[in-house]
Amino acid sequence: MKRAVVLLSGGLDSATTLYIAKKQGFECLCLIFDYGQRHKKEINAAKKVAKQASCSYRVEKIKLAWGGSALLGRGKVIPRYHKHSLNKIPPTYVPARNIIFLSFALSFAEAVGAKAVFIGAHAQDYSGYPDCRPQFLKAFRKMAALGTASGVNKHGIRIIAPLINKNKAGIIRAGMKLGVPYHLTWSCYEGGSKPCGVCDSCYYRAKGFRDSGYRDAFQTNRGTLSKSKGRVSPLKR
Amino acid sequence: MKRAVVLLSGGLDSATTLYIAKKQGFECLCLIFDYGQRHKKEINAAKKVAKQASCSYRVEKIKLAWGGSALLGRGKVIPRYHKHSLNKIPPTYVPARNIIFLSFALSFAEAVGAKAVFIGAHAQDYSGYPDCRPQFLKAFRKMAALGTASGVNKHGIRIIAPLINKNKAGIIRAGMKLGVPYHLTWSCYEGGSKPCGVCDSCYYRAKGFRDSGYRDAFQTNRGTLSKSKGRVSPLKR
Repeated sequence: MKRAVVLLSGGLDSATTLYIAKKQGFECLCLIFDYGQRHKKEINAAKKVAKQASCSYRVEKIKLAWGGSALLGRGKVIPRYHKHSLNKIPPTYVPARNIIFLSFALSFAEAVGAKAVFIGAHAQDYSGYPDCRPQFLKAFRKMAALGTASGVNKHGIRIIAPLINKNKAGIIRAGMKLGVPYHLTWSCYEGGSKPCGVCDSCYYRAKGFRDSGYRDAFQTNRGTLSKSKGRVSPLKR
Repeated sequence: MKRAVVLLSGGLDSATTLYIAKKQGFECLCLIFDYGQRHKKEINAAKKVAKQASCSYRVEKIKLAWGGSALLGRGKVIPRYHKHSLNKIPPTYVPARNIIFLSFALSFAEAVGAKAVFIGAHAQDYSGYPDCRPQFLKAFRKMAALGTASGVNKHGIRIIAPLINKNKAGIIRAGMKLGVPYHLTWSCYEGGSKPCGVCDSCYYRAKGFRDSGYRDAFQTNRGTLSKSKGRVSPLKR
């Protein structure tokens, strides 16, 4: 069975990506990062998703202790959605995060003979992270082919971003068909007992579910947070 | 004073690179990796070099626990020089190592507003690591420009490899003029009390010093290992 390394963050994009990789017939090895983010909720969510998918996972502990992001360390203010300039890269950008994650995934994949690395990046519907763009991924693929033994030996590792052209609603619709356990995922930038409902990530998740026609188990509309006990169910409109 | 992040391994190439970066007027922040290598000697050597150069340093602990290299973990056999095929990538290749190191350096540089990242990679005189080649570095630069906020905002971080076109003797000659403390560096792949004298890295170091006309404080010729007490001094021929 061909192997793939899947970057798993705990959010809904990477969970969907995992199920797509499985559907494509890959034995998936999930890679989760403990990189000094504000809270452990997303790490725990990622573990739960991997377990639910019956996939092995490993948590890599790395410290991006130099900061440079509202997501690193406590005490920084997470902006409410659209309260930062939409033409600028948001303060939740983490310097070179996807570059680091993909580099580790590449190393892991090469060491275990995996054929592919999956990443849940998508350019649409998100708030301007340069390391989620198709042109970045294209450049990363070229760099990886030149800088690794597998690339030089012409059996390079494919970097697959199956969501790259989807918006959030499209991702959710695709994931629902695959049985992605969205009720286990965590999107909120804050680490509260319930999603804050006002950060960018909550905003896009709520909008994605609304547009998809499905109901989120974690309702993130401001002030109306609730968690259903069961799986995500279609929204009655 | 403009800042640079310098990748420091404890070997002579990166030590020379640090002194070149200093000479170019950079305030140098050294980045050292504890990545699961066979021994800590090179980490200690890197710290000593940074201190000698009066530069700050930080040691990043990352675990490349998936192996895939003779340099990762104990118990693997380090080949004697030229005992592996010269047309193949050697077993001391570590999957995606320089890609990971450069990614961290990029993140660090971006977070602290550094203008450059220095790496001691050089293609000549070495044993076929794909992630030391000029074409790899060129591709990394392009990827970094597309995948970081600083790149998108047109004040991207320069990836500088000042040794890329030098051979080992040329590196040593350049370093001697800059006062690089080669007696503090460690090149041997093994972690013995003295360099083994028979691995690739010992071989190239010994050849480099021989060709440069300088004497190495760590003499690595097989069986004739000795350490002079003082600084490296010119070889009387």
